[in-house]
Amino acid sequence: MALIVQKYGGTSVGTPERILNVARRVIASQQEGNSIVVVVSAMSGVTDGLIKLARDVSSQPTEREMDVLLATGEQTTIALTAMAINGLGGKAVSLTGAQAGIITNGIHTKAKISNIAPRQVRQYLKEGFVCIVAGFQGQTLEGRITTLGRGGSDLTAIAIAAAVKADMCEIYTDVDGVYTCDPRVVPNARKIDVIAYDELLEMASSGSKVMQSRSVEFAKKFKVPFEVRSSFNTNRGTIVKEESIGLENVVVRGVSIERKQAKVTITNVPDKPGTASRIFTALSEANVIIDVIVQNVSVSGSTDISFTLSADELEKLGNLIDRVAAEIGAGQVTKKSGIAKLSVVGIGMRSHSGVAATLFESLGHGGVNIQMISTSEIKIAVIIDEAQIELAAKLAHTAFGLDRVS
Amino acid sequence: MALIVQKYGGTSVGTPERILNVARRVIASQQEGNSIVVVVSAMSGVTDGLIKLARDVSSQPTEREMDVLLATGEQTTIALTAMAINGLGGKAVSLTGAQAGIITNGIHTKAKISNIAPRQVRQYLKEGFVCIVAGFQGQTLEGRITTLGRGGSDLTAIAIAAAVKADMCEIYTDVDGVYTCDPRVVPNARKIDVIAYDELLEMASSGSKVMQSRSVEFAKKFKVPFEVRSSFNTNRGTIVKEESIGLENVVVRGVSIERKQAKVTITNVPDKPGTASRIFTALSEANVIIDVIVQNVSVSGSTDISFTLSADELEKLGNLIDRVAAEIGAGQVTKKSGIAKLSVVGIGMRSHSGVAATLFESLGHGGVNIQMISTSEIKIAVIIDEAQIELAAKLAHTAFGLDRVS
Repeated sequence: MALIVQKYGGTSVGTPERILNVARRVIASQQEGNSIVVVVSAMSGVTDGLIKLARDVSSQPTEREMDVLLATGEQTTIALTAMAINGLGGKAVSLTGAQAGIITNGIHTKAKISNIAPRQVRQYLKEGFVCIVAGFQGQTLEGRITTLGRGGSDLTAIAIAAAVKADMCEIYTDVDGVYTCDPRVVPNARKIDVIAYDELLEMASSGSKVMQSRSVEFAKKFKVPFEVRSSFNTNRGTIVKEESIGLENVVVRGVSIERKQAKVTITNVPDKPGTASRIFTALSEANVIIDVIVQNVSVSGSTDISFTLSADELEKLGNLIDRVAAEIGAGQVTKKSGIAKLSVVGIGMRSHSGVAATLFESLGHGGVNIQMISTSEIKIAVIIDEAQIELAAKLAHTAFGLDRVS
Repeated sequence: MALIVQKYGGTSVGTPERILNVARRVIASQQEGNSIVVVVSAMSGVTDGLIKLARDVSSQPTEREMDVLLATGEQTTIALTAMAINGLGGKAVSLTGAQAGIITNGIHTKAKISNIAPRQVRQYLKEGFVCIVAGFQGQTLEGRITTLGRGGSDLTAIAIAAAVKADMCEIYTDVDGVYTCDPRVVPNARKIDVIAYDELLEMASSGSKVMQSRSVEFAKKFKVPFEVRSSFNTNRGTIVKEESIGLENVVVRGVSIERKQAKVTITNVPDKPGTASRIFTALSEANVIIDVIVQNVSVSGSTDISFTLSADELEKLGNLIDRVAAEIGAGQVTKKSGIAKLSVVGIGMRSHSGVAATLFESLGHGGVNIQMISTSEIKIAVIIDEAQIELAAKLAHTAFGLDRVS
């Protein structure tokens, strides 16, 4: 008998009929002999409706009260899901985040989990109940209601799985799992059966938004294996777990792309201590989120610094960089949108050489010009023209042997 | 500086604009130097929507889960009300029933309050906050969410007022207070300034449904004075409190009417011990709610028993009474709808004679025939033809000097 935590997102519980579907899945899983904890989000659209109500009564709703308000969304779903299971002959109880023992710090609207004390979850499981736990929410030690911010329900599921030492945490969503590349871009993309935490993290930070990074990091820290799968069919999804020998045999796990990027280059930056710091401190203070930074070796006392950011962020930038460049005595500033980022990710890279060469060669053969290169231990990212991103993704996908064999 | 508990019902908080109105009232009351606890219901329509959702997932929703579901209605209102007050420059915090220390027994959907431990309410009041408490809900000692059933938010307000020893509990509603009679029936009806608990209880049980009896009984038990008033204007309402010398000077406080009643008469009931019991046990087992029972003195070993009930209940009755009458060897059973009940209520009756005579005389002069009479210490009720109820109400209202002096 396995202990399984199942998490269903807002789309999967978006209507009474879908809640009944979830109830049937849960009952089937229990009848196979498993103990089940279910974590649910608010029904899709409910949270947005609550936020609209808040804005109707206050232009700047108090964050403490925002949490009290938003927590009702998941509380509604847990009650309905438990009712549905009971109505179909199962045996379920609902638990709010607080009742499930999710203790957080007091940072309202984006609280961090500080402790998990799932006493009631354990007791109800022992009595044969399915526990339906409200995702996304917790309470402080003083008893104030908090919410965990974006991706919070996934985090609740992983945290509960860690606390009750679950055998598996199943994250049900509206996609079938993690793919070697976005199937809309690369029709030959395959679903990945098993992937390491770090690989998913790198792919997530490169545009493959299956899960928020914080949940994957939490799972990695507490060694919680989880499976990303669809709530609309019974196909196996993608299992995310610790690295293992088998996983390292694959050099590149997947290819991620991120469109609508922009590039800023500052030429002739004086090669003195503190100049790079001046630039990036100014960006940080203006809350501009940047991605790749490239600085080449200095030639004759000055260097060029480039960085990328999303096209949206570029608008926020205004003439900030021009002012900073003038202050530090740099040369010209060029800003260019219409670029994109392609990343190949795989923990096998650590022990295999020639990955970069293979990537550059495949892109070069296909006529894709590389504008910037950035590498990490398990990722190689290149910045290219946005118009060529689909071609580049197909080329890389084929070059690393990821294409589906039909 | 007074400590005031204010309760706003679902209509008073039915839209964001109305919530902002409530927020303005609360801030004004605080600025007069008062400490304020606000108890709110779910926004009108919200509870019905939640019940519909529950029926969509289960034909017989689990009562434990029904409470978890319905409690979200008031939780939404407390958050929005606190946000509204904060947005207007006030200082408010929300508290769920559990956080406000409302401890109940475990009878889901109609829990009884067993204890009140308003530690957080006291603390926040001391720090200058307005406390916005969710009505209608509490939790068991084990931490399960419960709801208090019909009229539950009034009960929360009275209970909190008792626990924090409030100077006044203001029950805001969509009427201006308690009237000497329904103004739609008696245009000369006046708003009552002060009324005793028992008088309101008798009027409530006679059709004047300003408040559920259980809240009035709770207020009486813990000597909590409260005022029923409108949230849509600033007129003073009706204060409900303990009896006092001044209150006893008025013989009749008000006239209540109840339409759509029915009457059942069983003739020639054998005058033996246990026969009345047979009849009313059978009614009780069939969950038929009856009102007035009249049995006259026995003549020659048998008697006639009559009772009234609402016309709706008469339909539930079917041929139950005919079967019972046959079993106990009684005579004929007659059932008659189209009747109504008129009650005059006043604690002054205890010390004044002639009230019954005045009532019967006024009705007789007006041509109203009395079919049944039932009296209690502070009430005289008569059953008459429904077609004459408005005439009778006007006659009684005038006879006891209740008409408005313009």
